[in-house]
Amino acid sequence: MPDDELLGNHRQELRRGTVVLACLLALREPGYGYGLLKTLEAAGISSDGNTVYPLLRRLEERGLLQSEWNTDESRPRKFYTTTEAGDELATQLLTDVSDLTASLHSLNGRS
Amino acid sequence: MPDDELLGNHRQELRRGTVVLACLLALREPGYGYGLLKTLEAAGISSDGNTVYPLLRRLEERGLLQSEWNTDESRPRKFYTTTEAGDELATQLLTDVSDLTASLHSLNGRS
Repeated sequence: MPDDELLGNHRQELRRGTVVLACLLALREPGYGYGLLKTLEAAGISSDGNTVYPLLRRLEERGLLQSEWNTDESRPRKFYTTTEAGDELATQLLTDVSDLTASLHSLNGRS
Repeated sequence: MPDDELLGNHRQELRRGTVVLACLLALREPGYGYGLLKTLEAAGISSDGNTVYPLLRRLEERGLLQSEWNTDESRPRKFYTTTEAGDELATQLLTDVSDLTASLHSLNGRS
């Protein structure tokens, strides 16, 4: 058995690359930080606020997300939405992921 | 359009996590460094010697690969093979990748 730490490290490395993509896909419907975490969790992509909140700000700086404050409820919340540029990036990255997964399965089927 | 550098960065991040897995899967049949690069390339996983050669040594140190010198030809080559522990890790990571890909597609289908 591979020890759990080793598996954990490699698993984390695989997941890290997908969090950006998951956020861009999920936020094609506007969402705020905590709600996004719940959406990702429901989809089986576990992450945490320490990763996702700074990431949202970075993606906004790069023009991949845009934000606005929603003050309808007693506690104002910053809602993020994927921009057109973010949507195009997400589409390309999703194609990449599908291609990579197919490549890995082809390597798996080789032996 | 997302600019190419941005796409390149995210693409690289996604790919990085899969190279370990690709090596472990490919080396269930013994292979040497350059041959492995060609196998990965044929499967659509582009990488390079600067990434893969140090990675092979690291995976061997961790007991996920084993190696032996093949001196049948004029130029001796170090052949690597995935160990049982490496094979188990690869199986688990491949399941992870498939699950992650399914999660991303479910997020994609949401909107």
